[in-house]
Amino acid sequence: MKRAPENLELPEKDPVSPLDLLEMGVSAAGQEGQSAARLSRLAIVGTGLIGASVGLAAKRAGVELVSGFDPDPAALRVAHERGAVDLAADTPAEAVGTAELVVIAAPVADLSGRAREVLGLVDETCTVTDVGSTKSAVCAATADDKRFIGGHPVCGSETSGPGYASADLFESATWFLTPHAGTDPDCYRLLHGFVASLGAHPVAIDAAAHDRLVALTSHLPHALSNLLVNQAGSTRVEGHEPLASAGGSLRDMTRVAGANPRIWVDIFLENAEPLREALAEHRRLIEQLETALAAGDTGFVGRWIAEAGLHRRHLLAEVYPSVGGLFRLRVHVADQPGVLAGITQVLGAERINIEDLEMQHVSPDRGGSLSIVIAGDDEAHRAAELLETQGYSVVVSDILEEDA
Amino acid sequence: MKRAPENLELPEKDPVSPLDLLEMGVSAAGQEGQSAARLSRLAIVGTGLIGASVGLAAKRAGVELVSGFDPDPAALRVAHERGAVDLAADTPAEAVGTAELVVIAAPVADLSGRAREVLGLVDETCTVTDVGSTKSAVCAATADDKRFIGGHPVCGSETSGPGYASADLFESATWFLTPHAGTDPDCYRLLHGFVASLGAHPVAIDAAAHDRLVALTSHLPHALSNLLVNQAGSTRVEGHEPLASAGGSLRDMTRVAGANPRIWVDIFLENAEPLREALAEHRRLIEQLETALAAGDTGFVGRWIAEAGLHRRHLLAEVYPSVGGLFRLRVHVADQPGVLAGITQVLGAERINIEDLEMQHVSPDRGGSLSIVIAGDDEAHRAAELLETQGYSVVVSDILEEDA
Repeated sequence: MKRAPENLELPEKDPVSPLDLLEMGVSAAGQEGQSAARLSRLAIVGTGLIGASVGLAAKRAGVELVSGFDPDPAALRVAHERGAVDLAADTPAEAVGTAELVVIAAPVADLSGRAREVLGLVDETCTVTDVGSTKSAVCAATADDKRFIGGHPVCGSETSGPGYASADLFESATWFLTPHAGTDPDCYRLLHGFVASLGAHPVAIDAAAHDRLVALTSHLPHALSNLLVNQAGSTRVEGHEPLASAGGSLRDMTRVAGANPRIWVDIFLENAEPLREALAEHRRLIEQLETALAAGDTGFVGRWIAEAGLHRRHLLAEVYPSVGGLFRLRVHVADQPGVLAGITQVLGAERINIEDLEMQHVSPDRGGSLSIVIAGDDEAHRAAELLETQGYSVVVSDILEEDA
Repeated sequence: MKRAPENLELPEKDPVSPLDLLEMGVSAAGQEGQSAARLSRLAIVGTGLIGASVGLAAKRAGVELVSGFDPDPAALRVAHERGAVDLAADTPAEAVGTAELVVIAAPVADLSGRAREVLGLVDETCTVTDVGSTKSAVCAATADDKRFIGGHPVCGSETSGPGYASADLFESATWFLTPHAGTDPDCYRLLHGFVASLGAHPVAIDAAAHDRLVALTSHLPHALSNLLVNQAGSTRVEGHEPLASAGGSLRDMTRVAGANPRIWVDIFLENAEPLREALAEHRRLIEQLETALAAGDTGFVGRWIAEAGLHRRHLLAEVYPSVGGLFRLRVHVADQPGVLAGITQVLGAERINIEDLEMQHVSPDRGGSLSIVIAGDDEAHRAAELLETQGYSVVVSDILEEDA
């Protein structure tokens, strides 16, 4: 079965194009240990959650010396205390010193300036990258420099500072890299190997294409989440508050609503153009649905839902290895410490693998609903029977037939 | 703190209006046992998942005789085998016989016809209700009848038939009831008590208001989920498939995409008018955002995200009792049977309560990411330390500061 990272590698097409670089990068993936071992001095400019996590993961991967700088002395101190940087520098110049690789982990609005600054400080062989969510602006600002390659780890990051940093943050994450026509192959090879050594999967992509891609996969969902919760939250229906009777669909769809404005104002505005295109297309699709609803066009609505089912199945196939036989067990549980342990123990003892598990808390007095996803019809029903023998009432359903 | 069900009860306003009924119903909630005990004969027309679950829950609540009918003999047979109905009837007339309450659990498109049919079969004192997701059409078709009251249990139902029915399905669920000006107070009292005896929270609402409310809380989120996955799924960005690099936000927001077309085509079309209004308003809000993005209006975007944060906080306050101090622990776990048991045991043994728990499966060889929500800063960090002593690497974040 296909998996996301391989899937996203650009195919080899032209023996003299920058795609060669990507191919070299792909080859380098087979030598992760070597590449990581080759890098001994790393500098991090910006030691918030992502920067400090890069430091911790790099130390774990065997990088000898990590130096760091942050305009916020408190963030730098915490990163140093946590062992994410060995050397806390007073200036960017001191941090980048003799580094072989500089990772810039600054807010997206500051990236271009920081990248130009760092490129002016380091020598000819030093590789420079960033970890921002948008790539066009920083890559345009550095397009004349063979040493800079844009980067973006997709790791569901939180923005709570270096205190929450973790060496595991990039484990299994897609890490986009955006080499350009003039990129130095050695720089690309070094960065590719470094990213792989942190546990991430490097995926090469054109900077502008990256921004159109994340507009669809991340910025549009975030924007719709905000729009939906604002619409539901600001409406009253004859005194009833929609948010007070929110079901599972509204709750899931607004999970990222209101996400950190300090980060997201910049991201939305930096990627305004691709996001506006995605929003305009979304409006067009909504209008199409409105027309079908006005005409009572059951054929359209049926095909539209079926198409969504196919796409959702495709998305799940990227996440789960065995789609087609996924079942959800829904168990009502008391809200008491330890109740989950009992349930998961029973399944663990019988070697039943839990693919996905979610507990939705209702209230302390009424308890909550536990949703357990298990692959395979037989296995799911075996699990349900086991839990029923423990006195739990279980509802089993095919995950792709759900109506929730 | 306010809780959803109380919150949704209409206020008492007019001593001679139908709101009296609601008040009577509210009083009846204090006599759940009595009300349930008073009902001895129930009929269910339509024994799919919801109908059969009503039967199981009714039997558990002490109803003596449940008779059932379904146009699909297989569904009726399974409901009978599962003990959801005592008597499997060959015709609706035979099923409703001498019942005191008839619950119609048919597809929404069939509700009006079934309701008129049943009202023609039963005597003057029999109460008739339904469990459909939209209320205007069926209530309009029965508006001249004092015995009919529309109903809608909000229970994240699946549509996999009576084999998946459960007596627990309505536990803690909001169950909307739509009495009208001519509703018989005795009928309302009986139905209110019955719904409460199944573990649900009856909430009275005008039928048209109900449909506008669910258009916002359920049908709009479902429609947007379909629209989003269709947009992302049918786009290619220079060979890259957006669905292949879907992060958490896109995955969460498309959970209900493609949900059972047999049910949802009818729901969307039955509620076409309120849904179209909600969609048109959504388009208007999108356009507003596009304008702000085009103008680079950081003030607008910042206020818009902050507003979403407030609404999301309000939604969480309805779900969690102690919002403001919710923390997420993110733990990377191997995908092995039993690993969850180990983690939940450690927390259970220390009496640390898990508010919400989710495991997102990445792949069998790479493992997955476990998200554990815990109330209280101290408690969350105590949990993180405990897990770290077990060798797990843990990232803690404030749930309302997340950027995922």
